[in-house]
Amino acid sequence: MERIGFIGIGLMGSQMTRRILEAQYPLTVWNRKKEKAGALISAGAKWADSPKAVAQASDVVITMVTDSAASEEVICGENGVLEGAHPGLTLIDMGSIAPEMSRSIAERARGKGIPMLDAPVTGNPKLASEGKLGIMVGGPKETFDACLPIFEKMGVKIIHVGENGKGTTLKLINNLIMGVAIEAVAEALVLASKAGIDPQKVLEITSVGGARTGAMETRGPRMIKHDFSPHFSISNMHKDLSSALKLAEEVGVSLPAASISREILRAAKSQGKADLDSCSVITVLEALANTTVQVKN
Amino acid sequence: MERIGFIGIGLMGSQMTRRILEAQYPLTVWNRKKEKAGALISAGAKWADSPKAVAQASDVVITMVTDSAASEEVICGENGVLEGAHPGLTLIDMGSIAPEMSRSIAERARGKGIPMLDAPVTGNPKLASEGKLGIMVGGPKETFDACLPIFEKMGVKIIHVGENGKGTTLKLINNLIMGVAIEAVAEALVLASKAGIDPQKVLEITSVGGARTGAMETRGPRMIKHDFSPHFSISNMHKDLSSALKLAEEVGVSLPAASISREILRAAKSQGKADLDSCSVITVLEALANTTVQVKN
Repeated sequence: MERIGFIGIGLMGSQMTRRILEAQYPLTVWNRKKEKAGALISAGAKWADSPKAVAQASDVVITMVTDSAASEEVICGENGVLEGAHPGLTLIDMGSIAPEMSRSIAERARGKGIPMLDAPVTGNPKLASEGKLGIMVGGPKETFDACLPIFEKMGVKIIHVGENGKGTTLKLINNLIMGVAIEAVAEALVLASKAGIDPQKVLEITSVGGARTGAMETRGPRMIKHDFSPHFSISNMHKDLSSALKLAEEVGVSLPAASISREILRAAKSQGKADLDSCSVITVLEALANTTVQVKN
Repeated sequence: MERIGFIGIGLMGSQMTRRILEAQYPLTVWNRKKEKAGALISAGAKWADSPKAVAQASDVVITMVTDSAASEEVICGENGVLEGAHPGLTLIDMGSIAPEMSRSIAERARGKGIPMLDAPVTGNPKLASEGKLGIMVGGPKETFDACLPIFEKMGVKIIHVGENGKGTTLKLINNLIMGVAIEAVAEALVLASKAGIDPQKVLEITSVGGARTGAMETRGPRMIKHDFSPHFSISNMHKDLSSALKLAEEVGVSLPAASISREILRAAKSQGKADLDSCSVITVLEALANTTVQVKN
């Protein structure tokens, strides 16, 4: 079995590495904060002192860090993965980063003879722990095929989209739908509440039929409770809709609903909510309507 | 068991009446076109020559006709349900009509001593045949409680929302989410296609994770195939979003994404697509981007 290296043990990474360990892959890890790796090391993972050292000890290195800058740093920076390049190494970046950055990193990896996949995921830590992520992959088909058994330990829906950058592009498109759906759900809850309908009943009825959305299922209850602890922040959703709109500009597509949803996210940012969960867009709509969503009892 | 009368045997009504018959309720029916009642009469339903005659033969009359005007006609018109009023009669209108009309009909029924429920549904003929509709009900709680066993033959999620008109109001809010979600899905598919990603892969990846929507599941495949045979028409979706925006105007709520989605529906209407399925909004976006969504092979 391939020796796997994993860089980035956050909420998602800690669950994904657990799945890899359970599948008996030899695993070496690195994380910016070493203390987060404690449980994993107890469970059998080895620690390495840098991304470079992870690469040197591995056949496949997976990176799962915060954003484009962090991916570039741990892969292309000093003591990064590419400095540990060796024949037979494969690189998989599973972070949700800008498609341009995916393509740029892939090119630099190729320069060192390392094939790279961009393979961002959909899901959450719970789905990650169950191996039920969605994984959309850009990069060489033969590299995808070779890595498929590893992906299958983490995901339930694994798609090869196309060349490098296409995985992260599809992730933007996925998040476009999510961003607009969250806006739609927020509008519906505020309208219901101000029209005298318990928002809880909107949640109930839209759990069946054509209006059902992941946005209502996962975000609706938190919108109603004003629980804005961040799962996916306003700032991240704003960034992704902006990236989708930038892509739309490049290829010449009009996105009316995505545009207006981005404007509401920008307002939330301006109101100091950048680090709250993206479902806090409901507070922008509440303020516009001079109301607060109320559950009846 | 109550004797049930059912008026309106269309795509939905024909499935709902089948469920009622299977539950052994005595059933009397009327439909504008009698020939559509043939199968039902063979299965044990009685035919009556008018909505009035249905009411005379029933304890509970259910109406399930096209729109506000049709509901008003079969209930309040000549030879309508109210002309067959008798002590103990209950009226349930399960059509998706304007909340004002629900309230107006309820008031006229009350004048004849007849309690009325507005009880529009979510779902489709397949879900209706399985008794898996969502049913949202406005009207007196005691009438709702009395009719619950009947609703339970047709639906899996049955909610008493509030007084008369609240069922049809919640249906508008449900359709607001559906209308915006369909717009979001259309935008995503056009963007993906023009950015060189097979729209089929958008469909696949959004079947899991937070971006999943009923809109993509039920409409995505038809958008990609340009199968616009009407399940719920552009005209109906435009009408419902317009009604939701009218309600928003009345109660003072801003609905940015619903507004822009309604504009695209209006464009589709202007382009002669009123009677096509609402998922044909994708053709408006395709024309704006001078493209056609293409499945790769």
